[in-house]
Amino acid sequence: MPVGTQATVKGASVGDLTELGYGLLLANTYHLHLRPGEDLIARMGGIGRFAGWPGALLTDSGGYQVYSLAKLRRVEKDGIRFQSHLDGSERFFTPEAVMAIQRDLGADIVMAFDECAPYPCDADYARQAMERTHRWAERCATAHAAVSGRAKGGWSQALFGIAQGAVYRGLREESARFVTSLDLPGYAIGGLAVGEDRETRNACVEWCTAILPPNKPRYLMGVGTPLDIVDAVGLGVDMFDCVLPTRNGRTGQAFTSEGIVNIRNARYAEADGPLDAACGCCVCAGYRRAYLRHLFITHEMLGPILLTHHNLAYYARLMASIRRAIADGAFTELADDLRARLGHEDERP
Amino acid sequence: MPVGTQATVKGASVGDLTELGYGLLLANTYHLHLRPGEDLIARMGGIGRFAGWPGALLTDSGGYQVYSLAKLRRVEKDGIRFQSHLDGSERFFTPEAVMAIQRDLGADIVMAFDECAPYPCDADYARQAMERTHRWAERCATAHAAVSGRAKGGWSQALFGIAQGAVYRGLREESARFVTSLDLPGYAIGGLAVGEDRETRNACVEWCTAILPPNKPRYLMGVGTPLDIVDAVGLGVDMFDCVLPTRNGRTGQAFTSEGIVNIRNARYAEADGPLDAACGCCVCAGYRRAYLRHLFITHEMLGPILLTHHNLAYYARLMASIRRAIADGAFTELADDLRARLGHEDERP
Repeated sequence: MPVGTQATVKGASVGDLTELGYGLLLANTYHLHLRPGEDLIARMGGIGRFAGWPGALLTDSGGYQVYSLAKLRRVEKDGIRFQSHLDGSERFFTPEAVMAIQRDLGADIVMAFDECAPYPCDADYARQAMERTHRWAERCATAHAAVSGRAKGGWSQALFGIAQGAVYRGLREESARFVTSLDLPGYAIGGLAVGEDRETRNACVEWCTAILPPNKPRYLMGVGTPLDIVDAVGLGVDMFDCVLPTRNGRTGQAFTSEGIVNIRNARYAEADGPLDAACGCCVCAGYRRAYLRHLFITHEMLGPILLTHHNLAYYARLMASIRRAIADGAFTELADDLRARLGHEDERP
Repeated sequence: MPVGTQATVKGASVGDLTELGYGLLLANTYHLHLRPGEDLIARMGGIGRFAGWPGALLTDSGGYQVYSLAKLRRVEKDGIRFQSHLDGSERFFTPEAVMAIQRDLGADIVMAFDECAPYPCDADYARQAMERTHRWAERCATAHAAVSGRAKGGWSQALFGIAQGAVYRGLREESARFVTSLDLPGYAIGGLAVGEDRETRNACVEWCTAILPPNKPRYLMGVGTPLDIVDAVGLGVDMFDCVLPTRNGRTGQAFTSEGIVNIRNARYAEADGPLDAACGCCVCAGYRRAYLRHLFITHEMLGPILLTHHNLAYYARLMASIRRAIADGAFTELADDLRARLGHEDERP
């Protein structure tokens, strides 16, 4: 999933996204609740009709954004009280409130309200946050059932649960078992990609995927680089969302078949070739590295637009190649090849 | 001509521009001389190959930008001495230097070096500036002939002269006669769209077009709104360049068949329809006003991208309809219709 925080994937049009083969976007409940508000979006027919997006949508629960963006947040038994980062107004997200907001936003997949524990986090607090998340997940499931799991437009919404537990094996396993017991149509692994190293993250993922049922989608939230994704797919994850293709594209960092290209680098001042000779996207077909560098050096908006498009093309092709390799029984070979080619450069910036 | 100051039309890709039917872009000699420099662009094969633009290009002479952007500029007999607005470095634009820079930039049409007099401007200074511009035009023609009028890539470049003379009829007519005497492949009317009112501008244009030969292109520099263009075409002008479709698009102002739409206006918060129901562009086909407003209110880059695209589509269609009306002998009817529909709203912002 490309990330469309404010009901737009930054720098990419609906036409770009569909042309690249994307069928599912993530949008952020926290941002859309604050602006333009779920009431307006509901009156416009939900995010999809509002934004002219013909594909499917997933909204997160807002828990992570409250944690990372809001001012003066306070975690309480019933939810999280916080001040809007836009105007300081006080808000209170409860499981029931978040389910109502997501119903109005009208996505196809909605997420249970969770508390994303900080990193690092001691075991006592990690347990408290996990237990709160579990109680909230039960309340989300009840609230979701009460509105028949349907958006105001009438279509059904799938509620996914989220396993938390920080970096503690016992908690991760307990949390994976708990969300599985709720018998929801899909499950996410939350609370990762918050600063932990790759080995720790992979261990946490594996503790969860060993328990989460293989016949339902497993979604690793907020991950990641191409190799992060390869690792997690190898551990049984099916779905991802990440800002890297778009955010890094805006700052001049391109993902290529040979690793990362920082296009602002002086070495590309007269570089004749495309960003990635192995890429068939319209940016690689039409533009030279020297020109792309010029666009970034002169702060021209076409630079971020073009690198965003290329990175989205890269990620779309990466995921397509992973799906194909799995179907062909060749995933391990693909993963080894990608690790060999990207291994040294592919670090989260 | 859309304006591609730094070898990019802000917010529009090459694919957008060709799809919309544009075949000629303007790029700015002053900006490209400062960054990335004409030497680099010459080594990359000229602006067109550098930027992946398959169409034709025109470069201005840099005179206007020196006037409006440079620091500490001083007009001398042989040229204009100024400091770069980027790094304060001292530069000296002479007619010969500007012709050499434009040869290296490699456009298809290059402009003679001129002095754009300020507005308002007394008759004495207007005459001095005009006479300097004439001497410089002769030196440009000589320098251009000395390099055989060819870009480094080998293709021929057409040199256009520029008539100046501020708002004085005697000077405008003298200048139009003078540039005509140079027998160049095209002529521009410069020094307008600098703050004068519409009646004054139209009078200046008419004094020039009465003299400039009808069998060669006449180019009104820096103009303008849709009605400015309609006025000037009625007076015999063939070519225009203007930042309005792109600059206004970036700030949320859309040109439509019913006049200007300021999309940030609260009245569009839940507006269901497209920017312009009479427009067939992909923005009007795919997006609602409420969403476009949301993009601007939330400072999302897709807003400027989409309004830029729509405005470029509007201008392309306007010019196509003007060409068709002229061929059909129906220009007066078209002009009256446009004035009736756009008359009250269509003011330069």
